[in-house]
Amino acid sequence: MTLIATPQSMHFSAPLGLQSGASIREYALTYETYGRLNAARDNAVLICHALNASHHVAGVHAGQDRSEGWWDNMIGPGKPVDTERFFVIGINNLGSCFGSTGPMHPNPDPGQIYGADFPVVTVEDWVNAQALLLDALGVHRLEAVMGGSLGGMQALSWTLQYPERVRHAVVVASAPNLSAENIAFNEVARRAIVSDPDFHGGHFYRHGVVPRRGLRIARMIGHITYLSDDVMNQKFGRELRQAVSENAGGYRFSTQDVEFQIESYLRHQGDKFSEDFDANTYLLITRALDYFDPASAFGGDLTLALARACCKFLLVSFTTDWRFAPARSRELVKALLENRRDVSYAEIDAPHGHDAFLLDDARYLGVVRSYFERVGGSAS
Amino acid sequence: MTLIATPQSMHFSAPLGLQSGASIREYALTYETYGRLNAARDNAVLICHALNASHHVAGVHAGQDRSEGWWDNMIGPGKPVDTERFFVIGINNLGSCFGSTGPMHPNPDPGQIYGADFPVVTVEDWVNAQALLLDALGVHRLEAVMGGSLGGMQALSWTLQYPERVRHAVVVASAPNLSAENIAFNEVARRAIVSDPDFHGGHFYRHGVVPRRGLRIARMIGHITYLSDDVMNQKFGRELRQAVSENAGGYRFSTQDVEFQIESYLRHQGDKFSEDFDANTYLLITRALDYFDPASAFGGDLTLALARACCKFLLVSFTTDWRFAPARSRELVKALLENRRDVSYAEIDAPHGHDAFLLDDARYLGVVRSYFERVGGSAS
Repeated sequence: MTLIATPQSMHFSAPLGLQSGASIREYALTYETYGRLNAARDNAVLICHALNASHHVAGVHAGQDRSEGWWDNMIGPGKPVDTERFFVIGINNLGSCFGSTGPMHPNPDPGQIYGADFPVVTVEDWVNAQALLLDALGVHRLEAVMGGSLGGMQALSWTLQYPERVRHAVVVASAPNLSAENIAFNEVARRAIVSDPDFHGGHFYRHGVVPRRGLRIARMIGHITYLSDDVMNQKFGRELRQAVSENAGGYRFSTQDVEFQIESYLRHQGDKFSEDFDANTYLLITRALDYFDPASAFGGDLTLALARACCKFLLVSFTTDWRFAPARSRELVKALLENRRDVSYAEIDAPHGHDAFLLDDARYLGVVRSYFERVGGSAS
Repeated sequence: MTLIATPQSMHFSAPLGLQSGASIREYALTYETYGRLNAARDNAVLICHALNASHHVAGVHAGQDRSEGWWDNMIGPGKPVDTERFFVIGINNLGSCFGSTGPMHPNPDPGQIYGADFPVVTVEDWVNAQALLLDALGVHRLEAVMGGSLGGMQALSWTLQYPERVRHAVVVASAPNLSAENIAFNEVARRAIVSDPDFHGGHFYRHGVVPRRGLRIARMIGHITYLSDDVMNQKFGRELRQAVSENAGGYRFSTQDVEFQIESYLRHQGDKFSEDFDANTYLLITRALDYFDPASAFGGDLTLALARACCKFLLVSFTTDWRFAPARSRELVKALLENRRDVSYAEIDAPHGHDAFLLDDARYLGVVRSYFERVGGSAS
């Protein structure tokens, strides 16, 4: 049975104060829910999304065959997070470009498109906004909050900002903060966007253009870091797109044409992304990644920082993930154990790099399934 | 005693046939030599340069205090490659932008600047041109050929193209070919340059502009891959450039301003590079890297490919080099040993990533020194 997902929107007219000191006067959040909230209201699972994903977590949109949610292999009827048992909620984050209020929307103050004036939002701000939406849905306590990558950071932050509202946190392929190298990759991507002449200081909407060149480069860089060297070698290796002869390796001898399959693949990913992602959103979300660092308020002591968390945890990492390496998940595990928290940790031997958190891997999906089988909550 | 280096230039009026089938009608090579060729002409050492280096390997240019050669810690009087004993030669590769004929020079055929019409050159082409220069210098046999990274590929290629002319090859931080991930990083850098509106299809010289935006991005990407995650964390970590308050991590909350030290460092590297590197050269040199693959003519069998080499080898790799990882050097060692060649191999435990091959590391410099002490050759 296909799960049909229906996006909904909720408008908030009270201003939202942000970590930066700024605020958003009014805003809307787009979200989807799957399954049913039980009478006890204790079977809700919030799914937090990563950089380029959205509220559309599971199922398909009516009449659109190829519109599977980004975690459709994980969430749905009979799936590891079983929507027959759980009431699952996906929320598009503030500043995103898939429905919730973001840089491409009018700023109510001057009445113009926000563009680069959209305020900088943090993981903590997103969690606060998510909490307000849950209030409105009548969900006061989450049976679980779950996310991968940047979504995992939000799940972790929930356990620190609203410890009493979370019973379980599932943090996949994540980290307690970005390393200098992670920030460096984000910065190059941002520079590619900002230095595109079509960016116009972030107010490109007024000029009827989009900084596609910059977005393409940003996406290509990101994409490389999502994959492992091994999986790239397996999928593409040094294969040529079109060998022109038997001689001299079959090369075309061109610096600008596509020569290798990996080049063709990356260009395609860049082109696709530049057509539907907003440049200001890319800047905002990579900055939220850079800024997240719950230990910083505790002099860098992660154990102290996580002392507030009181839920149970499942952490998962992937051996070939060099963006959020297993060592980063182990830092979290160690800090939680030092706080005597109940922690399960699975380090999955998977070849796919960071992208593994989105892919089908029997052991990975099995670990999550087992965990959720032990989690309380039942359909009404 | 300071070694004073003097760049020289040699003009070649016979066309050079290239691997692509094209040829360069006439050209000049810029080079430097250090020490003296002995009477037996058997103490010459050729140093091959990598992506953004040049013929200026050692010493300083007269009257320019801060003009040390890029391998000045390795080469000079009393240094691991001792110019009191060896006659050392550095040659700027064809297509580069530091003196030898390249894209910014006039194409003798139409009489205009080459620009994007400069022919694609390969590692093998460079080695052929280097051999012609050595002929002209009266050096028929090299006591050693040496290089790091792309320079190591040239050293390796010397042993295959001119096996009888090489007694020792020193191949540092190199690989038998690029992996898909390496090619991917090169491709993103190239796309950043080519999609800069100031690139003008490679003929920007005619327009009086330089694709600086693209060059900056290309350099930033490259720079990240030259360093290790560890050394970036040590040098920069999550340190802020200028904390604005004690609150909220001291962040300025900006997506476009520099927030972290690593951002400031990368921007500085990008700016500097974009001022003195040629965009077409960047395309050509990264393509030469992509193309190098001596095993391809042997069905991918590296052992067969290296059977022609008959010199002795020293290979060096660095544990934290993820661009040319130790595993890639070990592939070379294995293939050479299968051919029963005399191979020394040192895997240096160094934190600096790929850049380690240029840096002071007592064990690394010691290994090279010891190797050259065993190598023949004496000053005249």
